[in-house]
Parts: sequence; structure tokens; C-alpha cells
Amino acid sequence: MKWTWVLVVVLLSFGSISLGKDSLDFPEYDGKDRVHDLNAKNYKSVMKKYDIMVVYYHDHPGSSRAAQRQFEIEELALELAAQVLDEFDDEDIGVGLIDAKHDKAVAKKLGLDESDSIFVFTEDEVIEYDGELAADTLVEFIYDVREDIISQLIFILLSELKGFKNIEEDIKLVGYFKSHKSEHFEAFADAAEEFHPHILFYATFNPKVAKALDLKLNEVDFYEPFMDEPVVVPGKPYSEEELVKFIEDHDRPTLRKLQPHNMYEIWEDDVDGEHIIAFAEESDPDGFEFLEILKQVAEDNTDNPDLSIVWIDPDDFPLLLPHWEKTFGIDLSHPQIGVVEADDADSVWLDMDDGEDLPSADELEDWLEDVLLLCKINVMLYTECAVHHMDVFYDDEL
Amino acid sequence: MKWTWVLVVVLLSFGSISLGKDSLDFPEYDGKDRVHDLNAKNYKSVMKKYDIMVVYYHDHPGSSRAAQRQFEIEELALELAAQVLDEFDDEDIGVGLIDAKHDKAVAKKLGLDESDSIFVFTEDEVIEYDGELAADTLVEFIYDVREDIISQLIFILLSELKGFKNIEEDIKLVGYFKSHKSEHFEAFADAAEEFHPHILFYATFNPKVAKALDLKLNEVDFYEPFMDEPVVVPGKPYSEEELVKFIEDHDRPTLRKLQPHNMYEIWEDDVDGEHIIAFAEESDPDGFEFLEILKQVAEDNTDNPDLSIVWIDPDDFPLLLPHWEKTFGIDLSHPQIGVVEADDADSVWLDMDDGEDLPSADELEDWLEDVLLLCKINVMLYTECAVHHMDVFYDDEL
Repeated sequence: MKWTWVLVVVLLSFGSISLGKDSLDFPEYDGKDRVHDLNAKNYKSVMKKYDIMVVYYHDHPGSSRAAQRQFEIEELALELAAQVLDEFDDEDIGVGLIDAKHDKAVAKKLGLDESDSIFVFTEDEVIEYDGELAADTLVEFIYDVREDIISQLIFILLSELKGFKNIEEDIKLVGYFKSHKSEHFEAFADAAEEFHPHILFYATFNPKVAKALDLKLNEVDFYEPFMDEPVVVPGKPYSEEELVKFIEDHDRPTLRKLQPHNMYEIWEDDVDGEHIIAFAEESDPDGFEFLEILKQVAEDNTDNPDLSIVWIDPDDFPLLLPHWEKTFGIDLSHPQIGVVEADDADSVWLDMDDGEDLPSADELEDWLEDVLLLCKINVMLYTECAVHHMDVFYDDEL
Repeated sequence: MKWTWVLVVVLLSFGSISLGKDSLDFPEYDGKDRVHDLNAKNYKSVMKKYDIMVVYYHDHPGSSRAAQRQFEIEELALELAAQVLDEFDDEDIGVGLIDAKHDKAVAKKLGLDESDSIFVFTEDEVIEYDGELAADTLVEFIYDVREDIISQLIFILLSELKGFKNIEEDIKLVGYFKSHKSEHFEAFADAAEEFHPHILFYATFNPKVAKALDLKLNEVDFYEPFMDEPVVVPGKPYSEEELVKFIEDHDRPTLRKLQPHNMYEIWEDDVDGEHIIAFAEESDPDGFEFLEILKQVAEDNTDNPDLSIVWIDPDDFPLLLPHWEKTFGIDLSHPQIGVVEADDADSVWLDMDDGEDLPSADELEDWLEDVLLLCKINVMLYTECAVHHMDVFYDDEL
């Protein structure tokens, strides 16, 4: 093995004379306007200029000062994202706005129904971004979109298996194929494209890796988040359609993590109008312990289609913390689990005595069973699993 | 154990009629100005109003449009932070600005030397915030400041040990004491106050926990980041001063992670004007593997005072990624390690063949030894470990 030195002549991108800390400094907004206002006249020519186009189809901002300022914040976030994306030399990435009041027709022509959403147009497809409107989260999503599907299918080496196992927050699939040219690999890669960049696809052509993963030729394993053991996708070899169908049937995990880049997507995917929400701070000893219990419960109940626990690490959402504490009436310095109505945030929480007295996996399972049963009864009675009806059945003790 | 239901009546904080997704929505800026412009006339009365005061002592913004807009972005970030912090009912937290051109005298009276920094004034002390100027990172830092030191000293239970061990990114200390009232515990808590909230302090009064941690009475263990094994602080029982001295002597770890909340602090703490920087994306199989190698190297060389590797996970800094790729001339989709000059970002990188060919821990140690030796020679010759002189000794092969 040869280690060669590469001497890098530094190109200072900001041309400033003071060079101090330049390599670390956050990009400051350079004042150049990059975000396009798309309308019926210009949208075709603007979009033709870029390889990837990020479009924020926004509601028309209200006239109050707060609404105006809020829209300004959103615009500035997009300007900052556009400036950062502009630094890539090999690809042109543009950012544009469509106003839902003035340019609904343009949105319609582009196939956009839902306003207040961000869409990423690539050569082949339109990908919806259902995350936080913040420059960093959005830019990171675009990085994932940019990645070539095939290079995303990292051909894992034996030495990388530990790292592969360590990825547990997202759904991932791994397949073993003869080579790049195998038609079964092609079907796998085509299926990957359908879910890119939301679901991770890995492939290996290495028999040793396959053996370590217990994968037969042309077989694909599906890993739910936080599950050590995968499910073998049945019926190998698979067509693209079979793989797509399997994934669509299994894309609501038993335990899933709310993350800035997927928060709205998960929130919209409620179960009977309700979410089971668990707050646990992984970097806190009691949060970590509670998370271990949640993982245990998820593993034991992975076959229950009614159960999907949304894990929120408060560290990921510092700006929402006081709002959640107020809305839910809970103290988020300790782990919490409860049922929250998706539409009006009515909620019921398990009393865990400020985290001093965490439930065992079995106790938590009993509680969850009761909650799900109550939900079913409520759905029959009221057509929804209404949290505010739960106290009809239970007084203050379970 | 009793699990009681707590029915929460939801107080909708925004009073909106449409209740949709309210519990999840990011707080939008409400248009109310909360950030104070502090000057000689008002600073005393304003600061008296708050339990905690966050002060951004900023350079006077330039007159260019870019500089004005950049300052506006910073102001909006602080407004958003102030609005979020305003939601706490039990404590008043204020945010203010001091202009370094107009109100240097005010800053001086408050004991602030360095402009372009944020300071947090609490009842007892002034804490410098050396992180990213972003609402979320700043607000999270304030949460840590708010936490009572004694409650920060979580009295770990046996069941929480796994979570305690899992905290590896920060320096942490753990002590075993007889009780709350022990004078040795008091010295420990006083030392904790000195480093709050930058360093984590834990204590236990539970002999079983102490036994599991191999701690004797009144003994304190010091954990460097990413080290499984702690160092026992010598000379128990300790006075506050002894603890403080030990920590100050050991606060530059062999491997440390650059994080948004500490990035400037770490960058300023260079070794002979240089940083050894390792980029590794933990959520990527090859990044994870490289990180394991780095941890191994750090463990083997923890006694070398000249070695401090700064690990950067590109996922934590999406806005800097294209800037770093350009400045350093490297591809950050693979792990990288190099030497970077802190002041002008001159850099030399180990050629790792796009991550296909990661070095073993031994090979990496050899490389680092060479780098450190070169540094020492350069310091003698040029009074600095100048990266741009490294090619004098080596042509393109090491």
C-alpha cells in the first residue's frame, strides 16, 4: 500500500484578506439573489437551465408583519441553500418559488397538487421533500438525491459489515447478486430508484459478505429500523414490481424515528388518526435505557400491523421542546410515552414518575395492548381512535 | 408499580382555528421583537429583568448589502431563539445585542473582551458560547446552561449504566460518594460548576453502581471521549482545586468530535497552529469502519500529548460540505484524514484511494507519527508546524 502526500494549494473562496479560521467558517449569505420566482412566462426556461431544480410551492404569504417576516425567513433559508448548492462545479442545482395564489397553473403543469411543500425535480423524477424548511436539512436531502443510485448501492466489503449493521434508523435492504450485469441486480436497482433517497439499498457481489449476512444468491433482506434480524423478501428472484410491492407493504415500521428530514411524512402517516409517541434522549442514561426497552418491545411485536411507535429524540428538535412540553403538559427532561391525536394534539401519557420508574418491556407491552384495544373500540363507537374518549373507559388507573 | 393515565387538556398556544398538525409544527416567528439593543442607558435595567441573559457581542455590520443581509439573518436567528425561550414559564430568558463599534464601553463593563461571540449571563457566572450562530444549536446550549448543576449530576442507577457508557462524544467524569452531604461530593459539585455545561459530571451514592464502575469511595474517574477505560483521578479525596487542575490539564482529548455547539472552541485550540482532521460519516459503512480505526489509534496513543485528532462527521455540517471539498480539494463522500493549518487552511491529505483502501490502525499510527515528527522539525525551523513546508521533506511518497 502506498500512502502519497497530496499537497493542496488552497483557493480561498471568499477572496478575503484576513484568512483567519476561513476553513471552518460558516458560509455567510453573499447577498446575491439566486432563488427564482417561477411564473407562467419563465418557468420553462429557468428549469431548463438546471440539472436539479428545487421548487418550494408555497401558500401566498399573509399580509401581517409576522407572516411577512416568516416568509422572509423561509426565503433566506432557500437563498442560503441555493448559495451552498451553487458551489458544486459538476452540476447545476437551482431553487425556485411558486406562489399558490398567483401561479397555481404553473404548479398544475408541473404536476404539483399539494402546496406548502418542496419538490425536487431531477432528470427522471419528482421527489417530494417532507422535512423541515431549514437550509441544512434541505441541503443534506439534496446531497442524497444527487447520489447516483448505483453508487448508493454500496458494494459492501466484509470490513464494512459492522458499519452496515450499525445503520438502524432507516429502512434498509441488502441483496446478493452475481454481478453488475445480472438481470436480478437490475430489477433491484430499478426498485431502489423508486424509493430513492428515502430508503437505503445495498448490494454485494462478494460471496463472503453474502455468507456473513446469510444471503443466498439473488436474495434480498429487508431490515426494519432498529431490528437486528432482517426479513427475507419471499419468492426470489424478484421482479422490480414484486420488490416495490413488498416494500410498500412494509414501509410503516414498528418503531421509527422522527427526524428533521422526514418529520411531516411520518406525522401524516398516522394510525387511525393517532400516533404513539415516545420521547427519549439517547444521550441521557435514562433515555438510552428507555430506548432499549422500546427496541425490545418493537422486536417482540414486529408482526403487529397496528403498532407503530414514533420515537422522538428531543435533542433533534430543540426549537420544539418548550412547545411540546406546553402542548402535551409533560416534562421532557425524562422519557415519556403517550398517545397523541394527529389532528388536534390531544394526548394521554403514561405516568412514569419522572423517569425514576421505567416500565419493563412486558409492562410497556401490556400498556400498548390496552391503548390499541381502546383505539379499536373507539373506532367502532366514534369512527376514530379518539384520545379524549379514552378516559370514558379508564379512570386514573390502568 | 402503578401506571396512571394522565389526561391532558390541550392548550393550543397559537390560538389558531385550524388545528391541523399543530403539535408538530415548527414555531414560526410571531413578528414580535424580543431581542434588545443594549446600550449604556438601558443595559442595566434590561439585564435586571431576566434570570438568564444571552448577549451577542457583534462586530458592527458592514454597509454592503451582503453584510446587511447576513446581519439580518443573525438577528432573525436570535429572535427565533428568544421566542422559543420565552415559552418557559418558570424562568425569564432574555436576548440582547451589543454593537462593538457603538457600545464597546458597555461590553467592557460586562467584562467582555472578544467581539463576535455570544455570552450567557446567569446569576453566578458568564459562560461563553463558542458554537454555530443558529437558533437550534444556541437554544440547546441554553437548555444545558439552565439545568441545575446538581440535577446534571444524575445519580445513576445500575440500569442506566449502559446508557452512561454509551455517552462517548464528550468528556465525562463520574464520582462515588457517601451522600449528598459529603464534603467530597460538594468539592466535586463545585468543580462541576466550573465546567458547566461543557463537561459532563455524574455521581453515584449507590455501592452497586460504584462496584460495577470499579470506583472506590470518594474516587473520581475521568473519561476521555471515545475511550472505554477511564483514568482514575489520582490523590483522592480531592479538593475542588485539585479536580479543576486535573481537568484543565486533560481537556484536550486524543480524539474529539467537532460539533455545532463547540466548533469554534475546538478550532481555536490548535496544536502548533495545526489540526489533524479526520472526516468520517458514521452512518456510512466505510465511515463507520474508519471511525473504529480512529478510536483504536486514539486508545493506543492516549498518552501522547501532541496528538489530538478532530473528527468531523460531514452529516453534522451539511452547509459546509461543498466549501470544505473545494477548500481542501477532497471528496467527502469517502473518509479522509489530513493536516490542516488553522489560520489559512493549507492542507495535506492522506491518499486513501477513495476509501477503497482504508489504512489499518498501525499504518495510520505510522503516518501520524511522521506528521507529528515533521511538525516538530518545522516548529524548530520555521517556528510553526507549517503544512506548506512538509513537501520540502517529502516528495509525493511517504
